[in-house]
Amino acid sequence: MFHLTARDIRRRNRFSVLQAVYAAEGHISRQEIATATGLSFATVGNMITELIDVGVLAEQGHDASSGGRPRAQLVVNPGRGLLVGVDIAETAVDVELFDLSMTVLRSAHLPVDPSATKPHDLADLIAHGVAEVVGADVERVLGVGVSVPGLVEPEGGVSVFSPYWSWRDVPFRTMLSERVPHRLFLDNPLKASTVAELWFGAGRDVDDLIVVTLRAGVGVGIVVDGSLYRGVSNSAGEWGHTTLILDGRLCRCGRRGCVEAYVGAPGIVETLREIAPDSPLLKADDADTIAALATAASDGGKAVADVIDRTGRYLGVSIATLINLFNPRTIVFGNLVATHLGERLLQTARRVAAEQAFSDPFNRVTLRLSALTDNPVTLGAATFALEGFLADRETFGSVGARRAAKTAAP
Amino acid sequence: MFHLTARDIRRRNRFSVLQAVYAAEGHISRQEIATATGLSFATVGNMITELIDVGVLAEQGHDASSGGRPRAQLVVNPGRGLLVGVDIAETAVDVELFDLSMTVLRSAHLPVDPSATKPHDLADLIAHGVAEVVGADVERVLGVGVSVPGLVEPEGGVSVFSPYWSWRDVPFRTMLSERVPHRLFLDNPLKASTVAELWFGAGRDVDDLIVVTLRAGVGVGIVVDGSLYRGVSNSAGEWGHTTLILDGRLCRCGRRGCVEAYVGAPGIVETLREIAPDSPLLKADDADTIAALATAASDGGKAVADVIDRTGRYLGVSIATLINLFNPRTIVFGNLVATHLGERLLQTARRVAAEQAFSDPFNRVTLRLSALTDNPVTLGAATFALEGFLADRETFGSVGARRAAKTAAP
Repeated sequence: MFHLTARDIRRRNRFSVLQAVYAAEGHISRQEIATATGLSFATVGNMITELIDVGVLAEQGHDASSGGRPRAQLVVNPGRGLLVGVDIAETAVDVELFDLSMTVLRSAHLPVDPSATKPHDLADLIAHGVAEVVGADVERVLGVGVSVPGLVEPEGGVSVFSPYWSWRDVPFRTMLSERVPHRLFLDNPLKASTVAELWFGAGRDVDDLIVVTLRAGVGVGIVVDGSLYRGVSNSAGEWGHTTLILDGRLCRCGRRGCVEAYVGAPGIVETLREIAPDSPLLKADDADTIAALATAASDGGKAVADVIDRTGRYLGVSIATLINLFNPRTIVFGNLVATHLGERLLQTARRVAAEQAFSDPFNRVTLRLSALTDNPVTLGAATFALEGFLADRETFGSVGARRAAKTAAP
Repeated sequence: MFHLTARDIRRRNRFSVLQAVYAAEGHISRQEIATATGLSFATVGNMITELIDVGVLAEQGHDASSGGRPRAQLVVNPGRGLLVGVDIAETAVDVELFDLSMTVLRSAHLPVDPSATKPHDLADLIAHGVAEVVGADVERVLGVGVSVPGLVEPEGGVSVFSPYWSWRDVPFRTMLSERVPHRLFLDNPLKASTVAELWFGAGRDVDDLIVVTLRAGVGVGIVVDGSLYRGVSNSAGEWGHTTLILDGRLCRCGRRGCVEAYVGAPGIVETLREIAPDSPLLKADDADTIAALATAASDGGKAVADVIDRTGRYLGVSIATLINLFNPRTIVFGNLVATHLGERLLQTARRVAAEQAFSDPFNRVTLRLSALTDNPVTLGAATFALEGFLADRETFGSVGARRAAKTAAP
C-alpha cells in the first residue's frame, strides 16, 4: 500500500516553497509563501532556512510597505550553480545552460547527421554540446537533464524505445555517463514539457493539468495533485498512439489511425498533401511546411483553411477523450505545432470538444496555449536536474532532517 | 498547491490498516499489518488502538504458532454497525444491508416502474427499500451509500446528469435526506465499483489500477497511488463516451461512435442485430440477450462468434487507449457484460490490445475479470458509507488525534 515517508513530504514541501519563489518572479515574503502554498508558517520557515543554508535562496532587503513589522524578502540565488537541459529531437540536439534563476546563459544547436543516428553518435553529440555550453564552469554544474525521445526508464536510464531511429533497450545513461562528467537525469520530451509547465507555466496555478506536446511526435503529460503521473513504468501519457480513427491513416509507429498521424507535424503535412498535392507550401522539412501554413492562414486560401479546420476537428475529438477521462482543470498546448497554428487550431478544437465531451467536464476545463517562451523541452530537462539536486540527500539530508525534526510534528 | 494534512495522512493510514485486516479474511497480527501496509509498527499500533477503541476491530486470541511471543490476532467486529448499499440501475433499484465484515444480511430488488422515473419516484423507491432491509435496526446503521447513474457531485449530492431519465441538476441528496433517516453518501456506479475493488478486490494487490464497468453504461474508475482519482468535478473516468469510431454509430448520449455504443450491453445487442437481424437470441431485455449470447457461445454458431469477435476487437482498441494513457498495473473488468461474456471478450481484446498498445506498457499490465461476487455496485456504495464513517471526526477525532499526537513526529 502507498504511503508517503517523512522524507517524501519534506521534499514535496521544499519543491512547493521554491515553486512559489519562482512564481513571484522577484521577491516574496515567508508569509506570502505560506499563503501561496497552503503550508503552515512553521513548515515554510523550516524549508526556507534549509534552502538559505544550502545557498539556493537568499534574503534580499525587507518590505516595510505594509506598515507593520518589515518582512524579509526571499529571492532565488542565481549564482548557486548551473543546470543544463538537453533536447534530443529528430533533426537536431539543443543544449542550454541555465543559472539557478532558470535564465538561459548559453545555447548550442547541433544538427543531427542523418547518417549518424546510432546511440553512440548521439551520445557523442550531446557530450560535445554540453562541453560547449559549460565551458570552464565544469565544477559549478549541479546536473544535466536530457530529454530522450520515446519511452525512457529514468531509474535504469534505458531508452526502452525511440521511434525516430529504431532504438530498443539502449543503456543510454551509461553511454552518456562515460562522456559527460555531471550528474545525469533522463526522461522524455512529454515529461520534460510537463515539468516545465509544473514549475514555470500553467502548473503554477492549477494542480490538475494536462500538458499536450504537439510537434513531430505528440503526447501528453498528466499532472495529478500537483505531481507528474508516470504510471507503473513511466510511459503514461502516450496519447499520440491512441486510436482516433479505427483502421485510419498509417502512423509511423506501424499502427493505423493514431492521434499523432493526424495532429503531429507530419500528419498535418499529409492532410495538406491530400487536400492540395501541388501546394507550394509543401517544403522538404515538415517544420517549414507548418510555418508556411501559419503564414498563409491569414490570407484565407481555401486549402489552408481546410487543413486547419480538419486538423482542429481531429484535435477537438482527441481532446474530448482527455476531458472525459481526466476531468482536468486546464489543458495547455505547446511546442512547434502549437506555436505556429495554436490559436487557429484551438478555435475549432474548442467547438468540437464542446460537442464531443460531456458538458460538465468541458465547462470546467480551460484550453490554452503554453505561455512558456523558447523551448519547453530544454527548460524541462534542466528542471529534471533541478529536482534531482533538490532531492539530493547529501545536500539536504543533514541540514534538513535535523531542523525539520524539531518541528515536524503535525 | 497540494499538500496532505496530518488528518489526511491519519485517515489514509486508518484505511490502509483496515484494508489489510479485510484482506486477511480471518485474523492478522499487528506485525503482519505493518508488513502488508509498509507502515511503521508504531503507526500501525496507534491506528489499531484507535480502531479497537471505537469498536471496529477486536482482538481475538493469540497466535503462538511461530514459537515466539504470542501475537494478538485482529478481526473486524461485524456487529459494530450496519451499512447499506444502494444501486440505482435503469430497470431496478438494488438495496443491500451489510454488517461491518461486509457480509450481506438482507437484500431488496425493486423494479423501476418505467412510468415513474422522476427523481421523487426514485427517492421514494429507495426510501422504501432501505426501510425494508434495515427493519428494526435503524439505530445501528452507520450510513447509506447510494450509487446514482451519471455525473454526481458527492459534496453537493446533486445528480448533475443522469442518462437514463434525462435528469439534470437534481438535488438528489436533499430529496433522499427528507426520506431516509441515515447519513447519506452519493456517487456513481463507476466510482462504486472502483471503491469495491480498492477495498475488497484487485486493489488489495496493486496501487495503479483501472476498473472497467461493463453493463448498459460503461466507464472506468482510475486508481492512482491507491486512491480513487476523481478529477476536478468528480467526472474523471467517463471513458464510455470517448470516441472509438469517428462519425460512427449513434450513441444514446446523442453523439456518434462512443465506446459505449459498441461495448455496452445495448451496443452488443445492436451488433448482433446488424449481423443477424432475425436471431432468436434477441430478447426484449438487453440483459437477457447478453445472457443468451453467453449460452449460445459454447455451441459455436457463426453469428454469435462474429458478435463476440467484433465486440472483443472494439474492446481491445479502447483498452489500448487506457493502457497507453495510464500505464496501469492491472485493468479489471466487471459487471453484467463481463460476468456473461468476459473471458471470451478478453481473449480477443488482449490480442488486439497487444497490437494497438505500445509493447512496454502492454507487457506491464494484467487484464482480468473482477473476482468480486454478487453486485460490486451495492458493495461499493456501502463502502462509501464505510469510508464516511471512518472519516467521521466525532468518532475518530478525539481518540485518534490525542493518541496519534504522541507519536506522529516523522
